[in-house]
Amino acid sequence: MMEVTRKLARFIVEHHSAGIPQEVRHEAARSFLNWVGCAVGASRHETVERALAALAGFSGPAEATVLGRWDKLDIMLAALMNGITSHTFDFDDTHLKTVIHPSGPVASAILALAERKPVTGEEFLHAFILGVEAECRIGNAVYPSHYDVGWHITGTAGVFGAAAAAGRLLGLSEQQMTWALGIAATQSSGLREMFGTMCKPFHPGNAARNGLLAALLAGKNFTSSNQGIEAPRGFAHVLATDRNLKEITEKLGESWEISLNTYKPFACGIVIHPAIDGCIQLRNEHKLTADQIESISLKAHPLVLELTGKKTPQAGLEGKFSVYHSAAVAVIYGAAGEAQYSDACVRDPQVTALRDRVSATVDRGLHEDQVRISMKLKDGRTLEKFVEHAVGSLARPMTDADLEAKFRGLCEGILSPLETGNLIRLCWDVAKLKDAGEVARASVPAGRARKAAG
Amino acid sequence: MMEVTRKLARFIVEHHSAGIPQEVRHEAARSFLNWVGCAVGASRHETVERALAALAGFSGPAEATVLGRWDKLDIMLAALMNGITSHTFDFDDTHLKTVIHPSGPVASAILALAERKPVTGEEFLHAFILGVEAECRIGNAVYPSHYDVGWHITGTAGVFGAAAAAGRLLGLSEQQMTWALGIAATQSSGLREMFGTMCKPFHPGNAARNGLLAALLAGKNFTSSNQGIEAPRGFAHVLATDRNLKEITEKLGESWEISLNTYKPFACGIVIHPAIDGCIQLRNEHKLTADQIESISLKAHPLVLELTGKKTPQAGLEGKFSVYHSAAVAVIYGAAGEAQYSDACVRDPQVTALRDRVSATVDRGLHEDQVRISMKLKDGRTLEKFVEHAVGSLARPMTDADLEAKFRGLCEGILSPLETGNLIRLCWDVAKLKDAGEVARASVPAGRARKAAG
Repeated sequence: MMEVTRKLARFIVEHHSAGIPQEVRHEAARSFLNWVGCAVGASRHETVERALAALAGFSGPAEATVLGRWDKLDIMLAALMNGITSHTFDFDDTHLKTVIHPSGPVASAILALAERKPVTGEEFLHAFILGVEAECRIGNAVYPSHYDVGWHITGTAGVFGAAAAAGRLLGLSEQQMTWALGIAATQSSGLREMFGTMCKPFHPGNAARNGLLAALLAGKNFTSSNQGIEAPRGFAHVLATDRNLKEITEKLGESWEISLNTYKPFACGIVIHPAIDGCIQLRNEHKLTADQIESISLKAHPLVLELTGKKTPQAGLEGKFSVYHSAAVAVIYGAAGEAQYSDACVRDPQVTALRDRVSATVDRGLHEDQVRISMKLKDGRTLEKFVEHAVGSLARPMTDADLEAKFRGLCEGILSPLETGNLIRLCWDVAKLKDAGEVARASVPAGRARKAAG
Repeated sequence: MMEVTRKLARFIVEHHSAGIPQEVRHEAARSFLNWVGCAVGASRHETVERALAALAGFSGPAEATVLGRWDKLDIMLAALMNGITSHTFDFDDTHLKTVIHPSGPVASAILALAERKPVTGEEFLHAFILGVEAECRIGNAVYPSHYDVGWHITGTAGVFGAAAAAGRLLGLSEQQMTWALGIAATQSSGLREMFGTMCKPFHPGNAARNGLLAALLAGKNFTSSNQGIEAPRGFAHVLATDRNLKEITEKLGESWEISLNTYKPFACGIVIHPAIDGCIQLRNEHKLTADQIESISLKAHPLVLELTGKKTPQAGLEGKFSVYHSAAVAVIYGAAGEAQYSDACVRDPQVTALRDRVSATVDRGLHEDQVRISMKLKDGRTLEKFVEHAVGSLARPMTDADLEAKFRGLCEGILSPLETGNLIRLCWDVAKLKDAGEVARASVPAGRARKAAG
């Protein structure tokens, strides 16, 4: 039998951060920034309030911050909560090869840990990159059969990433790291059936909580299998119908999965991103306002109408499944963030008036990442836009400035502009921090918001 | 799609305890007694010490007892620890149809909960029976394909049992119980690869911890799927290749899975129980001592030699995989409890001398539950014994007195005989207690042991 778990454990334990190229480190900082923004942005969401109401009373030493809030919890509960908040909007990062949202499980576990056991930003970023590497390589090994069976891979693979990163910061030995990955394997869980319920964001949170638990147990020599991943009754065989374990062990340290990470510019399913992108481009190029527009006609990939064909959404969440609403807000606001998917926005007369002038038809010649837009103006002109790759894709990544703008949008109403700016700076500079936990503490609003949350 | 999760939830929420026959209630008390004994018995084990060393520092309000110890932890960590201790010796109860060890996940969750939120023994026993019912019916629905894939069914099904029983005591509504079962489904985990490591007893502990978490979250309306068990991407499809969901919903309240529960008289794999049983019978019938015996010859099912063929075990754990050692201690001590599988006992010259005079051969005509023993004595006599069903099987259950004797053996060295007797009484009378948590508190030793553990 191929040695997989131990080889991965050895890599995580022994790797030196000097071997990581600068562009990989920068991508890690981008991922982290985006993750912090998502976590702060959803920190007042009902999902979060209910989980806190259920669990805060059971917290141990209140050592770690729930990002964006005054609540402090023990590190395992804080890891759980930050994993939940960061995925509540489904607006966090995506490793497109596996559809894993990599940052949630990993960053939630180690940022909480860093508040208990201070580490430098350099150590933190390194552990983050290694955790994402473990998580995504394990995902690569079992994708797509694992996902097709019905597993929510962010939960199932995420627990390994959290264990790996936390174990690295705890200074586990190779044997302990092997056990930590085994303890993670035997907690791997999360069903796709839960999509559309509060259990979806629960998955990265639970992966963070349980991965951290795995690392803590292994650190006290709580034993596990040495072949938790590769054994006939281990993770890769039990949770997938097909697998390629070489994806985990080959060229470790030579390629970095975090380089393949992407960020969503829009707070909705990825299939309508090309349409939103194209509408925003036309709006900005021609300085359009809604009242100039006679009609908008979209030609799109079949999945767009299959998944997002709601003509008259009534609530914010429904708006995310409406290409019509999305195109309308793209023109009116030049954005499609959480604010554009609020109940109020979906019912706004200006929005519904334009939405009703949007039509969409299937063009089977288009890829998922493409759209063809024809906009008829009241002055008789017709504007055309073909989007080859939507912004946010690997081919057209969001710029650092895009990510900052997204971050600011997410923090609006929770942090002051000054606080937001400070937090952005800390995220970019995370590798230079003497104490990585500073980021968590800087995510907490002062002043009025402080009182409201306290 | 058949309504499964909601129907089960409705049953758990609405059932009246009056409908449960007295013999079912008595079997529940037997299961509970046996579970408490196992938990106390292993409460000083290295597995437990390491888990406590890793996790005790993260405990929230110290409201619940780790059975047999002075440590108190928050209810989720106490549930985890008691699930671990009770399965550490692999000496707890077995639902033979599914090989689930049903009590661990359920009792660990609700006994901890009962120390935070006092409930009568009547409510406690009822919730225990309902939790076991949910857990074992879900197990029935997916066994054996689920187990064959590689899942440790005590973990995977156990989390449902813990959620159901805890949810019942928390007074969840039907909708909340449906969500609790969904939150349990999406945490269902535990791999058979972990057998032989500390992760095996971790599984019922983790099921208890996570089932309790599920019930607490659902109690605050944290949403989940309404079809967590039966949906195409729900538990029964994702974690099994075949399933019969009617096993969950048919005749609810008419039959009781806990009636099918069994208890191990001997602290080793079930395949050598017939041999031990037969040797003890001969010993007692003829008042035999080791020095009277020339040789012991066993004819057994092929699995006995395949799984327990170690001729010269050197350590306690190896002794459990030696039919030779087991037959020897059966004759010498009339027992095969944890004490007979200590390192010291395995190396005891009197034991090894007799062990070396034991031989075993395969008889393919025998069932797994049978053995044919021929014992040659130094005085020339030959004694024969055929065991049709080993003690502890459904056909020849341990008597209440057997269970008490086992309990006393487990508590030896941890509780005083007086404390043990008191605890046994409380377990038998659990349904009459005003406060079920009393059992947990009565498991804690006073005096010398108190100091040592404190």
